[in-house]
Parts: sequence; structure tokens; C-alpha cells
Amino acid sequence: MHVVRFSVGGAAGQVGILAGDKVIPLSALVKDAPQDMRSVIADWDRIAPELAGATASTASIPLASVQLLAPVENPEKILAIGLNYADHVEEARGSGLTIPTEQVWFCKQPSSVNAPNGDIQVPKASDKLDYEVEMVAIIGKGGRHISREDAAKHVFGYAVGNDVSVRDWQMKTAQWMLGKSFDTHAPFGPAIVTADEIGDPHRLAIKCYVNGELRQNSNTKHLIFKVWDQIAELSTAMTLKPGDVIYTGTPGGVGLAFKPPRFLKAGDVVRCEIEEIGVIENRVVAEA
Amino acid sequence: MHVVRFSVGGAAGQVGILAGDKVIPLSALVKDAPQDMRSVIADWDRIAPELAGATASTASIPLASVQLLAPVENPEKILAIGLNYADHVEEARGSGLTIPTEQVWFCKQPSSVNAPNGDIQVPKASDKLDYEVEMVAIIGKGGRHISREDAAKHVFGYAVGNDVSVRDWQMKTAQWMLGKSFDTHAPFGPAIVTADEIGDPHRLAIKCYVNGELRQNSNTKHLIFKVWDQIAELSTAMTLKPGDVIYTGTPGGVGLAFKPPRFLKAGDVVRCEIEEIGVIENRVVAEA
Repeated sequence: MHVVRFSVGGAAGQVGILAGDKVIPLSALVKDAPQDMRSVIADWDRIAPELAGATASTASIPLASVQLLAPVENPEKILAIGLNYADHVEEARGSGLTIPTEQVWFCKQPSSVNAPNGDIQVPKASDKLDYEVEMVAIIGKGGRHISREDAAKHVFGYAVGNDVSVRDWQMKTAQWMLGKSFDTHAPFGPAIVTADEIGDPHRLAIKCYVNGELRQNSNTKHLIFKVWDQIAELSTAMTLKPGDVIYTGTPGGVGLAFKPPRFLKAGDVVRCEIEEIGVIENRVVAEA
Repeated sequence: MHVVRFSVGGAAGQVGILAGDKVIPLSALVKDAPQDMRSVIADWDRIAPELAGATASTASIPLASVQLLAPVENPEKILAIGLNYADHVEEARGSGLTIPTEQVWFCKQPSSVNAPNGDIQVPKASDKLDYEVEMVAIIGKGGRHISREDAAKHVFGYAVGNDVSVRDWQMKTAQWMLGKSFDTHAPFGPAIVTADEIGDPHRLAIKCYVNGELRQNSNTKHLIFKVWDQIAELSTAMTLKPGDVIYTGTPGGVGLAFKPPRFLKAGDVVRCEIEEIGVIENRVVAEA
């Protein structure tokens, strides 16, 4: 199932299900359907059976006439792992390649959430703007001390994310968080593809294009720490909650790694795509 | 004004105002009072005038018979600055003392929020548990690109916080976030003392005791980057929101800096206090 948040004509966001080129509002399928994704996910055991066999009906809206929103508008947490593809480790650390033996976790602030087709801002504070395509996992059933073996049961679904980064702010101290948390710098979507449709997420082509030029081109099979390892590590420290967003790492090919670096500039279009999950495409604009 | 969140007999949390040894529920003073602190802060311009001159009445509840909760239960962001008192920089980095020229920002995840008297857990994963008393600033009016000159207008109030840290998890990679985000490791309170009562927050004695022994003893006048600098820096990157929590740095004397280190263990009691703001006291327990 492809679960989306959308708006019609700028009205309040609501949750819906994709059916071909139509969106079926959840409210047409489920009595008392919550309209924020965190509640929908938390209540999924009740909601999912009512969606079985849903088909486009009179309540459906053409996909072309809605605006897709970030699938989770207000995640409690956006957790992100660094250095999780070998080719990206090499480009980031030089040829003295050391594969990390520990998972490197940082985060993006929830105020950086953006829609799958929302504009990405070149901030006033920097012109060192960069892209990082990533598979994003969204937590379903929360918990603490989730084992690797149980981790798959805690994933609600997957989306395509861009871990947009402001490199000088990321690097000006040892802590990356600020440079990862500028407004508009966490677009993801276009839908959450539920985990049952994907099965094993470690076998998907992942690509990023800038203005049509292929920049990142890998496969999620190359993740150093798998999604299951990530959930086990995170939940050793903290309780994961329904709707928490996990950026699972980016492959080689980021703008910073070119010589000279090829940063994003206003007018660029960044397209991130992952096999079986979908495509997000964001225009780069100057911060107003 | 001292604004609190509290519960009576384990019932749902509500917002109230301290009046001596009584708590006045906000619902007794304000029509349609919201019951979560983020909404109260966002709506403060409407609410505050109705509180002027509030005194304990029949609706008041003895402070002794309520349980104080974390003043903001679900902040969108908990931002925290490192190395922001010279004596702590020295103990953390050795005598080759370098005062940072950039603000070092990391964060604590909102799932780590704890009540002002809630138990702090020694996690199963580590016995390297440490304390850090900090003044906490809570954002009132949100915004982006807030100047140092305007920053004071964006502070709703102040609380006492303990930036509880799991040192081996904090240090196992260069990114501190995981070790700062264990469940129960962000106690703060006891109230939010509104900014008008404090005026300049850079003149307050700040102390931490473990089992009655004074471990940290400084004054917020020694902050390297003032609260105003912090708000300016953060809001260059991200939109600050009502109820965002900022841990403003800890002075010297943390357990890690002793030789050998003096980490917290189950049974310890940590007391953090700041002049004019108040006291939080947390018992250390083993994670169940």
C-alpha cells in the first residue's frame, strides 16, 4: 500500500491511499480516521483491515490535482546515519578507507521536514548546499530494545529521502546537526510504501540526478549497517515511536566529493529515486 | 510567573500557575485553556492578561499533593550546546585550553524528556552515566533569523535542566547525539520561570550536588556564548518554535573529569539548582 499525506487547493493536510492515478482519502474508507500520519500509524492495526481491497471510488481525487505533503508532518525524531555506504566513506575520508565499526548517528530537526516536491532553500548563510539520496524507514510499532531479529516488524514502511546538507555548517564543529537541520532540508516521500510491499529493503537501486545528470548510483544492498542493525542500535538508547523517521545513509557521489565541489545552486532540480519506492524531485531556490 | 505542568493522582497532565505552596490550574483562570504547554506558550498573548493578579482560590491544589511533570512534554526540539563554560572546556579538553570560537550544537531527542523529580535510569547498555547541570531556555515566540538584539523577546522563560550523558555512547563516534538521548536523560523544571521575572539570565548561581556533595558550582555569567548568541546562531539555520528547549551549557565538575571518573550509580540522588529559577532532584535507578 502507498500511504500519502496530501492537500487539495491548499486546504489542511489529510491522509490517503494511492490507487493508480487516484488518491482515496482515508476519511472515505475508515470511520473516525485520524488525519495526522503519526496517529494513523499508531492506529494501523485497526485501520489496515478496513483498507483491504479499497479501490478508487467517487470519493477519489485525481493524483494530478492534489499537492503531496511530507508523509509525516511532525515526526518526534528524524534520525540519520552517516558513512553507511563504502564508496561514500571513501569519498568522505579519502583513500585511507576505514569502514566504520560503530554506527555514526546524528539527526535532522523536525523543523527541516519538506514535501516530496517542495523547494529546497539555498540558505542566506551558505552556498555550500549538497544532496544525499537516502532510503528512509518509518517506524510503525514503537519500542525499546528491539532486536535485529524483530526489527522488521517495527517498520511501517519506506520512502525516498534527500538528506540535504549545508557543508560548511556541518563541518564547522565536530557535531553535524546544525548543518543537517536547515529549514526545507529534509524532503521525503512521495508516499510511505508499506513494509509488506517491499519485503527485504536491502536490494533496491538508489539514484540521485541533478539537472538530469546521474550523480549517485548504487543499491541498498551496499548498506554497511542494515536497517535492522540501525533499529537495534537506536532502540538500545531510546524508545522509538510510530512515525519516527530514519535516514539510512547515502552512497558515493555527493557534490562535496567532486574536485572542485559541485554544490547545488538556485534553479537546479534534484531528483532522488529508489526502485519500488518512488521518486522525489525538488527544485532549489534562494531563501527568500 | 512560575508555569508548571502537573498531574493529580496520575491523571492526565495539565498546565498550572504556582502561587506560593499552591498550584492554580490554568483551566480555573482561562476559558478554553489549552492543556499542553506548547499550545499555552503559543497562545500566551491571549492567556497572560487573564492571569494577572491570580491568587490561590478554591480551585487551587496544594503543591504537596500534585506530581510535577516536565514543563514541556513534547518539545519539537531539544537543542544543546557543548563546551560553553571555560572551566568545563578545560576539564574536557585538557590544559591545552582552547575556548571555542564556534558554538558546538548537538541535541537530545524528545523521547529523553523527564520530570523534574523523575528517576534517571542507568541504562542496561552502560555504567558511564554522568550529570551536567544547565540553565534551560524555553522559546516563546518562534522565528527564523532572530538577531542577538531581539533574542530576549523570543524567550518564554527558564528552567533548571540536567543534560544527563552516557559517556561511552557519547564518545564512541564523533557524534554525541546517541549518548545524550537515552530515555529519562532530559529532566528539567521544576517550573518555567517566565522571562520577565528573570531579566538578565547571565548572573545566576548554578550548582549540582550528588548525594549532597557539591560537584558543580558556577554562575551563568561565565557562559562563553550567551543565550542571545545561541538563539541567533540556531535561528540562522532553523525556525525556532514555541516550546523548543535549549540546554545552554554546563560548568566544570562533571563526573567524567574526576580521576578516576565518578559516574552515577543506582541509589544516587542528583540535585541541580539555579538561583531564582529553582531546584530539580532526581534519583538514579537501574533501568528495569
